[in-house]
Amino acid sequence: MDLAPSPLALPFATLPQIAGVTARVARAHYKDWDRCDLTYVEFAPGTAVAGVFTQSACASTEVELGREQVKQGVARALIVNAGNSNAFTGHRGRTAVEQIAAQVSAHLGCAPEAVFVSSTGVIGVPLPMDKAKAGVAAVLDAEPADWRDAALAIGTTDTFCKGATATAMIGDTKVQLNGIIKGSGMIAPDMATMLGYIFTDAAIAPSLLQQMLEDANKRTFSCITVDGDTSTSDTVLAFATGAAGNRPLLEMDDAGAYAFAAALHDVCRQLAQLVVRDGEGAAKFIEIRVTGAASDDSARNIALAIANSPLVKTAIAGGDANWGRVVMAVGKAGEPADRDKLSIGFGGIWAARDGQPVADYDEAPVAEHLAGDEIDIDVDLGIGDGRATVWTCDLTHGYIDINADYRS
Amino acid sequence: MDLAPSPLALPFATLPQIAGVTARVARAHYKDWDRCDLTYVEFAPGTAVAGVFTQSACASTEVELGREQVKQGVARALIVNAGNSNAFTGHRGRTAVEQIAAQVSAHLGCAPEAVFVSSTGVIGVPLPMDKAKAGVAAVLDAEPADWRDAALAIGTTDTFCKGATATAMIGDTKVQLNGIIKGSGMIAPDMATMLGYIFTDAAIAPSLLQQMLEDANKRTFSCITVDGDTSTSDTVLAFATGAAGNRPLLEMDDAGAYAFAAALHDVCRQLAQLVVRDGEGAAKFIEIRVTGAASDDSARNIALAIANSPLVKTAIAGGDANWGRVVMAVGKAGEPADRDKLSIGFGGIWAARDGQPVADYDEAPVAEHLAGDEIDIDVDLGIGDGRATVWTCDLTHGYIDINADYRS
Repeated sequence: MDLAPSPLALPFATLPQIAGVTARVARAHYKDWDRCDLTYVEFAPGTAVAGVFTQSACASTEVELGREQVKQGVARALIVNAGNSNAFTGHRGRTAVEQIAAQVSAHLGCAPEAVFVSSTGVIGVPLPMDKAKAGVAAVLDAEPADWRDAALAIGTTDTFCKGATATAMIGDTKVQLNGIIKGSGMIAPDMATMLGYIFTDAAIAPSLLQQMLEDANKRTFSCITVDGDTSTSDTVLAFATGAAGNRPLLEMDDAGAYAFAAALHDVCRQLAQLVVRDGEGAAKFIEIRVTGAASDDSARNIALAIANSPLVKTAIAGGDANWGRVVMAVGKAGEPADRDKLSIGFGGIWAARDGQPVADYDEAPVAEHLAGDEIDIDVDLGIGDGRATVWTCDLTHGYIDINADYRS
Repeated sequence: MDLAPSPLALPFATLPQIAGVTARVARAHYKDWDRCDLTYVEFAPGTAVAGVFTQSACASTEVELGREQVKQGVARALIVNAGNSNAFTGHRGRTAVEQIAAQVSAHLGCAPEAVFVSSTGVIGVPLPMDKAKAGVAAVLDAEPADWRDAALAIGTTDTFCKGATATAMIGDTKVQLNGIIKGSGMIAPDMATMLGYIFTDAAIAPSLLQQMLEDANKRTFSCITVDGDTSTSDTVLAFATGAAGNRPLLEMDDAGAYAFAAALHDVCRQLAQLVVRDGEGAAKFIEIRVTGAASDDSARNIALAIANSPLVKTAIAGGDANWGRVVMAVGKAGEPADRDKLSIGFGGIWAARDGQPVADYDEAPVAEHLAGDEIDIDVDLGIGDGRATVWTCDLTHGYIDINADYRS
């Protein structure tokens, strides 16, 4: 199905070249569509890698293998298949991934473990090996592609292509970070979400990159939700070629490590928010800020209970300042809360304070805020210092349209 | 908003009289509607009571008081306000409930603690005391109503009125159980759901009634979900007048106790399923049967993860045998699962067995099953003996229509 671009779409960011990274795209015809659906990214020898993956108990072979591969910390190539997730396909699924890795490693003369494979699309249909083989052969021969081509080729139901960029100074060396991501449904937190890839020319030890990626993930990809549904294939990988020539970062105490971590966080946050902006059927981008909770984790759980509540999401879709539904969601989160200390606001205006409606509450400016497409919900628990921010979108007829008909 | 009856509606059951129980209804005009919205049920002296309530951390005053009252085990009256939940209204909310209880207890000459009050409707608007007072005065004077009138008067967004009945033999005495319930949105498990009331003429000790109600609740009301959203006011109360004259049931070893527990379970299951049949926007009734799980609790959590998945619910709405989304939901449930032992079927036909698609899978009979409005999903984990059955409905445009516009 061809979908109109999300009303919340942003233009594709201008992503510079990253030394040591070359992308190529090709048509593997995984589905009956006229577009590139196989992406190949080649990395210079010595490239470090880190990754975070879905917590699903039914994870795909790609995720299982990827978890093992990142422990070795080195990468030479990434293959992304779009249109077929190859998940829940038994031994045939594993054979397909191993065959692709073998084909690429033979071409590069590297270990197959240095070839990372991701697949996204329909679950339960074995990846057609003939198409994969011909597609890989074609992509290895293809001309280098630009970042936008790669971001387009990894997408499935995405309505716009998504990239982000940032820089950091490590000593006197400026390093560059680029990221691309795909995803718009089956998006829920507690994992790395969907397929995201971050590329940098910084020199950094794999273990430190892994630590920074996990930290960033916790406050970005794990803080977004579209529908509360967790994919079997969610993956975020970060690749660092070292071509910038900075003094390699080995631990957080090294000069420039915090600057790099901040830039990595920045790229992850941009990418995570772009996924929400392409949430299936989304018409409004919602930021939920929870303060005064028992702990940061408690605040995040409460924020996610609000973000995943169909009643809150439909109220926002209808432009309804229905703070009673926010109370309901706080109540069901299973976290410490005191009804009589709870405050709720929209767009910076409190509707309820300390467990009851604000006496002179004027709904007019709140209604105006809710008529827009960037919505803020503030919740203060009044019982502690815990805080968290979560991003989601509204629940509209568009979500039903997309998911009642699409075999994804 | 006036909603058309759910396509899954059933006719109101024929409920006999219960000795010791008299219902009356009146117009309190809690909303701008022309219908009875205040229900009063009077019980003979000596009536036992048991109750289960929402687990919400933001529960209403009615729920807080009700939890305390059931510990005393006796009831003389029930008041149900429809159109205003009186939840999250601070001290004014508590004053309103206390005033109603005082008014009724003065009329009956009983302790105010023997008067149970429930309220359902919009959250965060104090119950208008003048309307409540006039309404209670009117209802105390009203003619006795039949069960259907009472079932209608407790409803809010319900599209049909819901009742259930069963009998049991205790020794030589036949006892009768009737139940009425309201609810169609903000329905999620892990609590007693919405407002449900069960009436019986059996003689039974409050503590045993409470134990039986909790057991039944766990396998009925706690096994349904419409939208995963938990109300602040969910309540199920059971009242036993003892007028049937059976030898009073004091413990499970007493003759007839299991027969009565079975009848109570039967009424609870009927009522719970009726709520699902009136799920907001529901077009299909879905039974999800999970077997082979690590434990019964694990099976229930997995069944609920499937039942609450918007992607599964929209797939069923679209008549799509999308078992990949069921795999996704099993994976995200946070329970033990082995991808390669997992089997999934629809309407009694396995689509996937032991972690991969069935080789000669014929989708035609499955598609035919999914075109109907009573859908069965079978999931076998293949790792243990745990089992659970959960009921839900599909997610359709109707849910968005109702909730994007209704200030509930």
